Amino acid sequence: MRELRSSSFWRAVLAEFLGSLLYALLGLGASLRWAPGPPSVVGAALAFGLAQATLVQVLGHVSGGHVNPAITLAFLMASQLSVARAVGYMVAQLLGALAGAGVLYGVTPAPVRGTLGLSALHPGVGLGQGTVVELLLTAQFVLCVLASFDDRHDGRPGSAALPVGFSLALGHLFGVRAAAGTLRVSTTRAPA
Amino acid sequence: MRELRSSSFWRAVLAEFLGSLLYALLGLGASLRWAPGPPSVVGAALAFGLAQATLVQVLGHVSGGHVNPAITLAFLMASQLSVARAVGYMVAQLLGALAGAGVLYGVTPAPVRGTLGLSALHPGVGLGQGTVVELLLTAQFVLCVLASFDDRHDGRPGSAALPVGFSLALGHLFGVRAAAGTLRVSTTRAPA
Amino acid sequence: MRELRSSSFWRAVLAEFLGSLLYALLGLGASLRWAPGPPSVVGAALAFGLAQATLVQVLGHVSGGHVNPAITLAFLMASQLSVARAVGYMVAQLLGALAGAGVLYGVTPAPVRGTLGLSALHPGVGLGQGTVVELLLTAQFVLCVLASFDDRHDGRPGSAALPVGFSLALGHLFGVRAAAGTLRVSTTRAPA
Amino acid sequence: MRELRSSSFWRAVLAEFLGSLLYALLGLGASLRWAPGPPSVVGAALAFGLAQATLVQVLGHVSGGHVNPAITLAFLMASQLSVARAVGYMVAQLLGALAGAGVLYGVTPAPVRGTLGLSALHPGVGLGQGTVVELLLTAQFVLCVLASFDDRHDGRPGSAALPVGFSLALGHLFGVRAAAGTLRVSTTRAPA
Repeated sequence: MRELRSSSFWRAVLAEFLGSLLYALLGLGASLRWAPGPPSVVGAALAFGLAQATLVQVLGHVSGGHVNPAITLAFLMASQLSVARAVGYMVAQLLGALAGAGVLYGVTPAPVRGTLGLSALHPGVGLGQGTVVELLLTAQFVLCVLASFDDRHDGRPGSAALPVGFSLALGHLFGVRAAAGTLRVSTTRAPA
Repeated sequence: MRELRSSSFWRAVLAEFLGSLLYALLGLGASLRWAPGPPSVVGAALAFGLAQATLVQVLGHVSGGHVNPAITLAFLMASQLSVARAVGYMVAQLLGALAGAGVLYGVTPAPVRGTLGLSALHPGVGLGQGTVVELLLTAQFVLCVLASFDDRHDGRPGSAALPVGFSLALGHLFGVRAAAGTLRVSTTRAPA
Repeated sequence: MRELRSSSFWRAVLAEFLGSLLYALLGLGASLRWAPGPPSVVGAALAFGLAQATLVQVLGHVSGGHVNPAITLAFLMASQLSVARAVGYMVAQLLGALAGAGVLYGVTPAPVRGTLGLSALHPGVGLGQGTVVELLLTAQFVLCVLASFDDRHDGRPGSAALPVGFSLALGHLFGVRAAAGTLRVSTTRAPA
Repeated sequence: MRELRSSSFWRAVLAEFLGSLLYALLGLGASLRWAPGPPSVVGAALAFGLAQATLVQVLGHVSGGHVNPAITLAFLMASQLSVARAVGYMVAQLLGALAGAGVLYGVTPAPVRGTLGLSALHPGVGLGQGTVVELLLTAQFVLCVLASFDDRHDGRPGSAALPVGFSLALGHLFGVRAAAGTLRVSTTRAPA
């Protein structure tokens, strides 16, 4: 537990907290339907992907810029992260995401807010089916993160930022779309 | 046939199988019309392109991340791949694409499913005309792959991933659009 | 004040003026509603982001290609820019943006022109709320700029151009959207 | 005129011809309205930009992958290209673009074809105004090309491909939009 006393540990945890706050705020905020018309799947997917890319670029030297618990878990399982650090990161990510959603809740008017962009499954997609898709989408993302941060690459976070971000955007092009039907129904009831 | 006994051969074939499964699932899944409204050509083209880029990034060190039989054929003709490996890759790609489409079929509700995003030609485009376009689109993609993986470049798959992915997205911006008219007709009949 | 007599100072100030002119012209021009239908948030965000990326690429060796006063301020506070240079840059940026908006005003027909793409807040968003969002969006952008131009990176402007541009596009995916509701109302009154 | 007898000269001219054919086919083809609904400005801008990026990547080692007469002129004026080569490139680019448009004409059904995506000015934009915008858009593109191919950069075409392509896409996000109003009018008359 000596790691808990180092300042680099707490700087990294703080970085993950702030990064997750910005990630939730930017990604969910761009997913809301501010104007009438179909939600922009491409816009939301790009927002999540570019947010991940920017945070890897900004926080790469401090904490790695994981932001996503799936990345932290993958690094833990690849023995590239201590248990203490992984737990600290994931607690920071959870609190950061909640704080980001809270800021978004505070700044968006009620009719736009809806379910805050939290995905509901498409009415025709069962829970088991949704889980299979989520697992496969997460698999391609985690594999891309591990390959991009790998020693065989040149190690600069800059070269990992774009591939990792685009890989996340890719998952959202499918995943957001699978939920778009429901979102649309729930929000067209609002006077917009 | 000594190559068939090496573990690197079978790891590469397995990588191509899993990569093709993810490629088909992500690309076709993002091409489906989950909500009413015109299909998003940009979203589908980006999904195919980012999927190819991510898989080159992830599988570059294992099999090259071809996923696409056109790439494997080009490498074979450029004498950069043995015949055994090319055949193994292409069988794995075919089975992987079928498996990916099967997973997608299993998780999508019937009205959304339609023709599973498989392209039909625009009603005004003849078969010969479609073939000419396909040949030219494939030519620019294969040339980009060969140039990006070339020795004169620095050899890291990371530097090939984005150009190759964007080149594939480019082909789909044209190709998907040529088929969009038909897709639209066939799917608007569904109660959506 | 010896700096004011160097030709490199005035070349950099001129570069910031011309860069800001192009930035305002391209970003605002792509945000206008040239045709009926909902404004394209993705198109406007990409235009601002790619304009910033291109100008960092073009002017990186001359002035840094800041274009944005927020970047100049950040470099000043990080002690990487003299006060004289920061003031010169910001005056040039202001005049350049006005000149760019003036060119755009001169070349666009009145019904399209509207409020020249200047953002108004969404009717349901208060001033304090808008300020909080703006601060957080600017924070992620400034942090990305500082990280990308950092000594620890390889120093070529080329490697900073894309991350910085994508980070700016990210802010616009959220920010433009928050203003889109008003813009839409104000422009649908025009005969278009 | 000894240059005319070298095989590298004729290979480069042929490369420019084939590149321009693909560029015209892909860019114009993605700009056509294959389905009812507003034309996708983002899709067309991405198609032109990714086509330029791919061709710089593919033809960079042969001819530079100019494709665009504006680039060839800029290289000539910067004394980085002989007059003979510049003339050869521009003739090849003209013939290539005509050939690409011819292929497109041959493969598209009449109602979709319209004006083949050739831009007409927005009805409210005068000729002088359109010229000013075109000049400024071309200026940012040519400056980006010169900066990206510059000796101070690392010289690999791979590192120039993406910035150059994105810079071209940027111009089209504005330029295509300024013409979209007319295109829409002329094509909605078709039975689609």
